[in-house]
Amino acid sequence: MGFVLGTNQYGKAEVRLVHVDRSTPRHVITDVTVTSQLIGDFADTFHTGSNASVIATDTQKNTVYALARTGGVGAIEEFALRMARHFVSPEHPQVTGARQEIEQVSWDRIDTADGPHDHAFVRGGTETRTVVVTKHGETETVISGLTDLVVLKSTGSEFHGFPQVAYTSLVETTDRILATSVSSRWRYVGTDVDWDKAFAGVRATMLDRFASTHSLSLQQTLYTMGTAVLEEHPEIAEIRFSMPNKHHFLVDLSPWGLENPNEVWYAADRPYGLIEATVTRDDVPADEAAWAGIAGFC
Amino acid sequence: MGFVLGTNQYGKAEVRLVHVDRSTPRHVITDVTVTSQLIGDFADTFHTGSNASVIATDTQKNTVYALARTGGVGAIEEFALRMARHFVSPEHPQVTGARQEIEQVSWDRIDTADGPHDHAFVRGGTETRTVVVTKHGETETVISGLTDLVVLKSTGSEFHGFPQVAYTSLVETTDRILATSVSSRWRYVGTDVDWDKAFAGVRATMLDRFASTHSLSLQQTLYTMGTAVLEEHPEIAEIRFSMPNKHHFLVDLSPWGLENPNEVWYAADRPYGLIEATVTRDDVPADEAAWAGIAGFC
Amino acid sequence: MGFVLGTNQYGKAEVRLVHVDRSTPRHVITDVTVTSQLIGDFADTFHTGSNASVIATDTQKNTVYALARTGGVGAIEEFALRMARHFVSPEHPQVTGARQEIEQVSWDRIDTADGPHDHAFVRGGTETRTVVVTKHGETETVISGLTDLVVLKSTGSEFHGFPQVAYTSLVETTDRILATSVSSRWRYVGTDVDWDKAFAGVRATMLDRFASTHSLSLQQTLYTMGTAVLEEHPEIAEIRFSMPNKHHFLVDLSPWGLENPNEVWYAADRPYGLIEATVTRDDVPADEAAWAGIAGFC
Amino acid sequence: MGFVLGTNQYGKAEVRLVHVDRSTPRHVITDVTVTSQLIGDFADTFHTGSNASVIATDTQKNTVYALARTGGVGAIEEFALRMARHFVSPEHPQVTGARQEIEQVSWDRIDTADGPHDHAFVRGGTETRTVVVTKHGETETVISGLTDLVVLKSTGSEFHGFPQVAYTSLVETTDRILATSVSSRWRYVGTDVDWDKAFAGVRATMLDRFASTHSLSLQQTLYTMGTAVLEEHPEIAEIRFSMPNKHHFLVDLSPWGLENPNEVWYAADRPYGLIEATVTRDDVPADEAAWAGIAGFC
Repeated sequence: MGFVLGTNQYGKAEVRLVHVDRSTPRHVITDVTVTSQLIGDFADTFHTGSNASVIATDTQKNTVYALARTGGVGAIEEFALRMARHFVSPEHPQVTGARQEIEQVSWDRIDTADGPHDHAFVRGGTETRTVVVTKHGETETVISGLTDLVVLKSTGSEFHGFPQVAYTSLVETTDRILATSVSSRWRYVGTDVDWDKAFAGVRATMLDRFASTHSLSLQQTLYTMGTAVLEEHPEIAEIRFSMPNKHHFLVDLSPWGLENPNEVWYAADRPYGLIEATVTRDDVPADEAAWAGIAGFC
Repeated sequence: MGFVLGTNQYGKAEVRLVHVDRSTPRHVITDVTVTSQLIGDFADTFHTGSNASVIATDTQKNTVYALARTGGVGAIEEFALRMARHFVSPEHPQVTGARQEIEQVSWDRIDTADGPHDHAFVRGGTETRTVVVTKHGETETVISGLTDLVVLKSTGSEFHGFPQVAYTSLVETTDRILATSVSSRWRYVGTDVDWDKAFAGVRATMLDRFASTHSLSLQQTLYTMGTAVLEEHPEIAEIRFSMPNKHHFLVDLSPWGLENPNEVWYAADRPYGLIEATVTRDDVPADEAAWAGIAGFC
Repeated sequence: MGFVLGTNQYGKAEVRLVHVDRSTPRHVITDVTVTSQLIGDFADTFHTGSNASVIATDTQKNTVYALARTGGVGAIEEFALRMARHFVSPEHPQVTGARQEIEQVSWDRIDTADGPHDHAFVRGGTETRTVVVTKHGETETVISGLTDLVVLKSTGSEFHGFPQVAYTSLVETTDRILATSVSSRWRYVGTDVDWDKAFAGVRATMLDRFASTHSLSLQQTLYTMGTAVLEEHPEIAEIRFSMPNKHHFLVDLSPWGLENPNEVWYAADRPYGLIEATVTRDDVPADEAAWAGIAGFC
Repeated sequence: MGFVLGTNQYGKAEVRLVHVDRSTPRHVITDVTVTSQLIGDFADTFHTGSNASVIATDTQKNTVYALARTGGVGAIEEFALRMARHFVSPEHPQVTGARQEIEQVSWDRIDTADGPHDHAFVRGGTETRTVVVTKHGETETVISGLTDLVVLKSTGSEFHGFPQVAYTSLVETTDRILATSVSSRWRYVGTDVDWDKAFAGVRATMLDRFASTHSLSLQQTLYTMGTAVLEEHPEIAEIRFSMPNKHHFLVDLSPWGLENPNEVWYAADRPYGLIEATVTRDDVPADEAAWAGIAGFC
């Protein structure tokens, strides 16, 4: 009997980078947070503290900034691939794999009397665009996503027909508020993709289907959103969702002789429902390894 | 020598209310968090635990929901005034004052192929609209505001000419990123105001001046924003700002022979600069009591 | 009619400092976050962008580290006073005042088979020790405090006898959970104080009285804690509290034929009750200016 | 070509439960947050919105409270197993699996002059005890853990000998601060375990090894901690760690002629190093499915 080092990776987390493209007076800014991790032959430092193979996490941080300078940032999928390819290369034989995770927040141009400003910006919505790129040798996988896309329907949502089992007391409803904060990640088939266009398309489809689906359950809404994305994006192999059911409870005003025809609601924090599911094509192979370490998706 | 009970207030904090106006199929939603506090003759409960005068905080919560039902919500300034007037009234002789604080987040209609949706919404920007209403007897004061309005200029900002004192090492610059998260509160002269229009105007003016001011210091930008608001809004007596200087540091890439002409920046979390200031009319009296308990403004 | 610059201050916020006293092999660590702000004749930078008087916030940050090196940190009250005295001095004639705010988290020595370790530590409790020092010319005021001291009583708390007014529906109780997260700040009479001893004494008294008071209202518990602190600490002029009533609701299990004799509780997040009050000596003058900008205390 | 529903689960997240054992006047409180999720034959609700098989998430919440009433809580591992066994049972044929996740915070008795109080408590340290129980049919897996165990060594840590590759600029050191916030999870071989005793033992061993290991890399410290846990706990099959390297940078005071012999440090927020690794026995089978959806461990 003995002990062995199992799976492991290391790197620099949450490197904050703001890139300003000043090639014209109309600046373009890219605001990202990069987590770079390396996988490979690093057992020595665990066993003996010898760091002869350990590319310092500080070096990984420097690389984020240097690559941003030498090639710009562009789509976060492209930048994550560049990072991964930089490290998984003959110059670093001990590195057999890399995992690059990026989160991007959006900025809008400030509107002025003269139109959108050249170099003044206001933060966009609450949501974050994400990517996780894994590269093991020659195999590259891109999983894009978004988080904190908060949506709400004030009608057009029902929930009933559930079984009466032990400890069931929920009352059925044919008209409730449906609210969620969409977290979603989707895996591309390859890497020859127009990333920005695909992202915008997926986001628009999600919003459209959330709005237009008359919902009998959050699961149904989720599945409708997922299949619509796959239908419109042949470059996507599968899509996963983690969607909290952010409960809004109708306030009982009857003690004071007041009706409440679905107008006054209490928005609860905790607990909340939680629906996690994958929608996948039936003709592409799974790739569980690419999903390792991604939180909150079953 | 003895001890006395000094200033005190009590109430229910962070009552979450979502109101849906369903008077037409095109629903209007209002999403607010209300903190209700009462001021008055409540010494008994401190001294003896007798609650004969204590309007339960649970009652204050119920009142939020009941007033939302009986009169809708509307502008948060109006709703806060209604709350205050409800409690500071002959029915509650022990209540001499009230402080009502509300925060509102925004929702946009989801765009669909058929146009903006009637009852499906997506959360708006990161910022929050705020109000603090205080009512002491007949005297009502309205302080409106906003927080988390995050803005950034990628050029058009300098900082130099500061004195060399002990422990000064900062390098002067004529081109830096200027970024801040605007928190601002402004006090109205009276209560006969078109609240929504005034709020929209103040916000637009702030954004416009932040964008258009060539900045020599964040203080200068702040003052320009403040005076512009007062110029355009005679109904506002004073305006206060708390503006962090969210530092973006140019990354030194010279160890690798790379120039960095203001393109690649590290966005730091802490520490940050912090500028707090008031801009006021020279012909209206101060009202410090109205500002009591408001955090982060000097 | 015109506009004027009102109260203002500026500085560097949240400077993270960890000081290691290595004078013996048994290291002592001090972990603080310092916010330094200056007050004085700084109108020029607001009006014109001239920074000739502006001691850079970067310099204030450097001063934190330099003073920690030249004199150690010690009690946070003492360090804040040193910071304030450094800036409000003849070397900086434009500085008429300073406000230094410090938060300190605690570390305990790790217990090993050989006893408490010399240089290995584990984070202490959740609470934070605080201080706000203001110095205007020669006048120095020290307000110490603590936040996030989370306490709970599982019995020994009642709430009843409150009036039935509009929208009251709360049920009276003679046995409930009482839980709060104590935030408190207290103002000292002078600056010749054994700060660490006083802090430990105040904290111990608060805990003792919270535990030993049979509570008829959170207000009563608060007042008992406050008067006890003043009785035992003649060096303290007044003490303020902000205490949320962190509601624990008894779960109704009767639909399933289960009694619930105060055993199973739901701990709610929001809304929560909120009690704010001051207990003061009747023979010391007030000092409202020292409290300016301190959030959450009325 | 078509689309299929992939892996999915649903339930109620973050059910807040405080249980008071009042069987003697010396109350015992247990403060947990439970996330209950079910796995099984739920495709209908995704495809059609039929909820005939969907045990409402509200019912899962009620079950948390009801089971706490009928059998107490005890060790969180035991309670999670009870939850899982309740749902994966012949009464719910559609449920083939369950995942129960619990987080527990600690409370200490308040010390009074009369000793530790019977029913008054103060929150313990910052860390959280965790468990994830998965049950698929008859197969039960228990993964216990802890998060936010924040530790720091003020000396006894080196980092050098790393390779010079592209973009390396880090300076070698033989004396640095080593600080981390330990997140760890460990998988038990079976379910016949003294859970509380095992948890206390694992925690004590981690602290002891962190303190006593002269560190040449955080990886080495991690591995030493992991092997020590496995040596002392034959009931544990594997242990995983996610350990940020919370950087403390020595402040350069040389511009002002000051030495800084490892006394004054800047504690950085972001970026941070991140080490993730598993230490496992070489004679027990892996169980990747049990780790699905657990964030931050590779």
